Amino acid sequence: MFYYGRMNIQRTILGIDPGLANTGWGVICQQGARMQCLAYGCVSTPSDMDLAQRLAKIHEQISAVIDRYEPTCVGIETVWFGQNITAAFATGQARGAALVACAQAGLQVGEFSPKQIKLAVVGAGGAAKDQVQYMVKQLLNLDSTPKPDHAADALAAAICYTTHKGFEGKLNEGKAASA
Amino acid sequence: MFYYGRMNIQRTILGIDPGLANTGWGVICQQGARMQCLAYGCVSTPSDMDLAQRLAKIHEQISAVIDRYEPTCVGIETVWFGQNITAAFATGQARGAALVACAQAGLQVGEFSPKQIKLAVVGAGGAAKDQVQYMVKQLLNLDSTPKPDHAADALAAAICYTTHKGFEGKLNEGKAASA
Repeated sequence: MFYYGRMNIQRTILGIDPGLANTGWGVICQQGARMQCLAYGCVSTPSDMDLAQRLAKIHEQISAVIDRYEPTCVGIETVWFGQNITAAFATGQARGAALVACAQAGLQVGEFSPKQIKLAVVGAGGAAKDQVQYMVKQLLNLDSTPKPDHAADALAAAICYTTHKGFEGKLNEGKAASA
Repeated sequence: MFYYGRMNIQRTILGIDPGLANTGWGVICQQGARMQCLAYGCVSTPSDMDLAQRLAKIHEQISAVIDRYEPTCVGIETVWFGQNITAAFATGQARGAALVACAQAGLQVGEFSPKQIKLAVVGAGGAAKDQVQYMVKQLLNLDSTPKPDHAADALAAAICYTTHKGFEGKLNEGKAASA
């Protein structure tokens, strides 16, 4: 039987912080215990743009990011239920548009609560926003905190994926190889 | 100057009643004051299916309906704000997936509140659900009420489009032709 430890894993992970006005995205490469930031950015859509066009733009640009960096999995934040219903509905639509792009590319999807992401990145579920951003910078060895905040939050979701969605795939491969 | 009255309009209209578990759709053809039902149905996704896969299925099947019937515009209901935030978020994601398909096909999108749809179909903004379904059957000259309800609601949204999104396109063409 083979054992695939953390050190052997190499994979590219997309993180998404969905929003109708701003959808942050970030791509990291995990190699064993090391993480490297490949790219990050934000899809912004103006409020005077037609709703369907805004959603299509989010879908198109997330698809383009996936085509370019070829991640195999994606970490995405679940809605923050403290927000109002109008905001949740708008965020839901943006999230739907982004997730269609992910599913079309066959990405494995990990959904995380804000608390799970804070716990994974900072080590405390109640961490403040700037603590998360500081740790994203530290963990990815960046010169400065990624801007805009949506991009930093997307990278945090990708980092969360490395800790939460561990080794099922590799372990299954190991089982198959030893069978 | 040309005047394009209601009698001259011929167009195919898609209606969508978005939902994560069930997204109803219906296609009608409007020729002047007459309306005809071309097809209707419902995209159902099981709750044990991966979220992103469910959204991709909605996107794919709505795209297939658009490819087959070639509508030029779509009527879609806005969220019912009486529902809880979890339901609004789920519906939002389904709506996002469906609207991406519409935008990719270049459809003109009309968003209507439940009240607007009831007003257009029944003539009363406070009409009951079964009144709406009855009038959908009558207006489209169907033998029975379309089932499931999601399909009937989608047809109602398409009917609403005929009354609310009138003649801008045709009038603009008229202006261009007379310029």
